[in-house]
Amino acid sequence: MTIREGIKADLPQVLKLIKELAAYEKAADQVDNTVEMMVQDGFGDNPIFGFYVAVNDKDKIVGTSIYYYRYSTWKGKRLYLEDIVVTESERGSGIGKLLFDQTIKKGVEENCSGMVWQVLDWNEQAINFYKKYYSAHLDGEWINCSISIEQMRAIVS
Amino acid sequence: MTIREGIKADLPQVLKLIKELAAYEKAADQVDNTVEMMVQDGFGDNPIFGFYVAVNDKDKIVGTSIYYYRYSTWKGKRLYLEDIVVTESERGSGIGKLLFDQTIKKGVEENCSGMVWQVLDWNEQAINFYKKYYSAHLDGEWINCSISIEQMRAIVS
Repeated sequence: MTIREGIKADLPQVLKLIKELAAYEKAADQVDNTVEMMVQDGFGDNPIFGFYVAVNDKDKIVGTSIYYYRYSTWKGKRLYLEDIVVTESERGSGIGKLLFDQTIKKGVEENCSGMVWQVLDWNEQAINFYKKYYSAHLDGEWINCSISIEQMRAIVS
Repeated sequence: MTIREGIKADLPQVLKLIKELAAYEKAADQVDNTVEMMVQDGFGDNPIFGFYVAVNDKDKIVGTSIYYYRYSTWKGKRLYLEDIVVTESERGSGIGKLLFDQTIKKGVEENCSGMVWQVLDWNEQAINFYKKYYSAHLDGEWINCSISIEQMRAIVS
């Protein structure tokens, strides 16, 4: 198993993993992202995310961690872990921890003030992992809010 | 009242507003940010946030909206509204809506796929505002997780 930085050619397999996670999170229909969009967003003039991949001895990508930088008015620059996925057949073999640790390393190198992410309140397995290995601080007091681009266009028109 | 893009010289007043909001959110002790950090993060080689200010007829900043771009593996590039603050004495006069609308306009111009933000589950006034004027989608199923830079350093060392 190798953990390395992601390259453009990895994106089709990475998007498959993103969809696998979305299905697990009961939101498969929410993924509008495409490989073309990811090429633009990750490898354009001004990349807005980065990622690591876990590659097995058959050169197949079995896990990924996708991050970007967020800005906290309380804490400054932070690393945001957007997704961490290990394909179902490879779970429980320590790959998730390798990816998580690699992402933490990136945050330290980039002078972030901390790392943040979100977890679904019913995902006990993930919550236990974050508590056991990372003594993560969990805060369930915040609600996610969103409006779509269609709503936004209607407001500014 | 004028809404305009923020400049470096606004940052001391903007940080005061950030602290005012943090106090309202019962987290005044959580603000480690400084004007120097904000200058670096907002006006360095690679700015990681932008902001608007509401200025009254005495040239005082009475409100601010602070945003950055986040990356969603489901939706691509999104505008994240990190903070929206109107100083207490000026609340209820429509300044919040002007700032919110201006931020939405920015998201449309920058080809975002939507706008996202968070609200505390007990902040009914804000929740009602988001529902009434923006028909925002609210999702309370996610938990915020974080680790500090001290924890990160201990893990990678």
